[in-house]
Amino acid sequence: MSVLKNDLLLRTLRGEKTERTPVWMMRQAGRYLPEYRVLREKYGFFERCQTPELACEITIQPVDIVGVDAAILFSDILVVPQAMGLEVQLIESKGPVLPDPIKTSNDLTRVRVPDVQETLGYVFDAIKLIKQELNDRVPLIGFAGAPWTLLCYMVQGKGSKTFDEAKAFCYTQPELAHQLLQMITDTTIAYLKAQVAAGADTVQIFDSWGGLLSKDDFENISLKYIRQIVAALKDEVPVIIFAKGAWYALEEMAATGAAGLGIDWCITPQMARQFAGTNVTLQGNFDPAKLLSPIPVIEREVKQMLKAFGPSHHVANLGHGILPNIPVDHAKAFVNTVKEYSHQ
Amino acid sequence: MSVLKNDLLLRTLRGEKTERTPVWMMRQAGRYLPEYRVLREKYGFFERCQTPELACEITIQPVDIVGVDAAILFSDILVVPQAMGLEVQLIESKGPVLPDPIKTSNDLTRVRVPDVQETLGYVFDAIKLIKQELNDRVPLIGFAGAPWTLLCYMVQGKGSKTFDEAKAFCYTQPELAHQLLQMITDTTIAYLKAQVAAGADTVQIFDSWGGLLSKDDFENISLKYIRQIVAALKDEVPVIIFAKGAWYALEEMAATGAAGLGIDWCITPQMARQFAGTNVTLQGNFDPAKLLSPIPVIEREVKQMLKAFGPSHHVANLGHGILPNIPVDHAKAFVNTVKEYSHQ
Repeated sequence: MSVLKNDLLLRTLRGEKTERTPVWMMRQAGRYLPEYRVLREKYGFFERCQTPELACEITIQPVDIVGVDAAILFSDILVVPQAMGLEVQLIESKGPVLPDPIKTSNDLTRVRVPDVQETLGYVFDAIKLIKQELNDRVPLIGFAGAPWTLLCYMVQGKGSKTFDEAKAFCYTQPELAHQLLQMITDTTIAYLKAQVAAGADTVQIFDSWGGLLSKDDFENISLKYIRQIVAALKDEVPVIIFAKGAWYALEEMAATGAAGLGIDWCITPQMARQFAGTNVTLQGNFDPAKLLSPIPVIEREVKQMLKAFGPSHHVANLGHGILPNIPVDHAKAFVNTVKEYSHQ
Repeated sequence: MSVLKNDLLLRTLRGEKTERTPVWMMRQAGRYLPEYRVLREKYGFFERCQTPELACEITIQPVDIVGVDAAILFSDILVVPQAMGLEVQLIESKGPVLPDPIKTSNDLTRVRVPDVQETLGYVFDAIKLIKQELNDRVPLIGFAGAPWTLLCYMVQGKGSKTFDEAKAFCYTQPELAHQLLQMITDTTIAYLKAQVAAGADTVQIFDSWGGLLSKDDFENISLKYIRQIVAALKDEVPVIIFAKGAWYALEEMAATGAAGLGIDWCITPQMARQFAGTNVTLQGNFDPAKLLSPIPVIEREVKQMLKAFGPSHHVANLGHGILPNIPVDHAKAFVNTVKEYSHQ
């Protein structure tokens, strides 16, 4: 087995003290990069996901261009509903559309727990190629959506501010909802295990819509299933949970055995540490919109963030995905400030 | 001066113990009511706001139909930017559009602190008519948007998930931003004072986008101005602040002297009480999407909410506006459960 030249992220996730804070950015392989936009012009979204050479090139772009300490697989959380049998359309300017969403028990017969090698083999091929091309420069992060967030799209059929139809599905047909959540969970465990087998060094679970739920609902509809996923993976690789907005469950999320917890900018590092306890690594939490500030403001605010988190148990990141209109120089200023300032 | 027959809301906001918990719902005068939809078919949005007879009829509908303990003026927070000189289009299926938003110091010359009697007189006329028609059955709540939330629309020009352009405006042109925020604040103070003079018994400040800010930014960009508004109004009427998602500033909001603080369903009543302290009245926090549940589930969950808040210092409400697709019977179940259960 080969040895990573830069394993800052993995050591930080294991709770070790490191010479500086590792840094990466959610959606770092994305539209703010001109090099990505060139490929986006030429190939459709799923073509980019399903062609290992393209996924590999896109995944590695921010490592080369911005100098982040980890690569994250270029893919989308909705490849899982797709593998489970639902049609998913991804028109990037419009957001995702699932033309035949799940509304009834009859709809559920269209969904299956698939053989992930058969349906998602292209992801594992991409991971193998990325690992080869990365050549041990930095670790590779695999990922999947949390079952609740995937249910949101599978039931609502499209993006939403409130996902009220997805919630109503859970409130009015709880047995059906739990059956679907368990199917997503089983698929996700197999999917993430195969990502690890293919070479992913760590995995992140994205619960983008966790923060729409009350604390009780989050436990019942979301965390119950995330817990199963963490339990199945954590002895193989460090697992990061990012449940955006679900600050109220940091304590419970830390208790799952996750190595890292992502937080957004609406909670202070001090509060997050208080809720999450001392053992878990926190990841975040720069406001992505703040990368539109002048570079000196970015530098000042990044330093403040690093000071607030302290020198260990912290992975520097944004509190959500980088926005498409961020100048590349501003992204570099974010990354470089973390590298330089946390080293001191 | 006449005496209200039902002053539960006002007494609860003053911190008095009452025979039961008062209840109203944000956006209670709205699209879930068939009687509202009839008027919506016939008249444009601003026609409904600007015609005192229509605003009065819409305001009183939920008092008659659903039996809430307070009426809230039918209007929109964007009448203030409009009075300040910006064009505002409100197409209800699309959300608001401000075709000429503020981007530069030159744009700011188009904005003024207006004479509110001249520009918003129709609101005060509506309030006088509503008070007459309510005939002291329940109190009338006046309202305005918080300066930060109004800036969001005035700069971004339309709704947004992130309001990144509004944030960028504040981060890159802070002097300009504070100048605009102060102008909005001055207008809002005059506007709310005139609402009170016309008969509003209490006022609520809606900071719908407060929760998009970090704690430091919330203090600097939002709370600083809300504080001025509360200070100017609180000796005349009880003031309620509803800064959706800004749970991290409950302590600071309580310290403004506001009588009530609105909270959403993502924070438990226990936590909110812990952060806000014992003196302030809390308002909320039922998940609006949960009103899509079967009525027995609504009843069970409302009882749980009431138990968690306890019998005093609580105004029962939703954690955000009622959704247009809520059956009227479900809204009634919410209101009736509060009335019956909290009385016991």
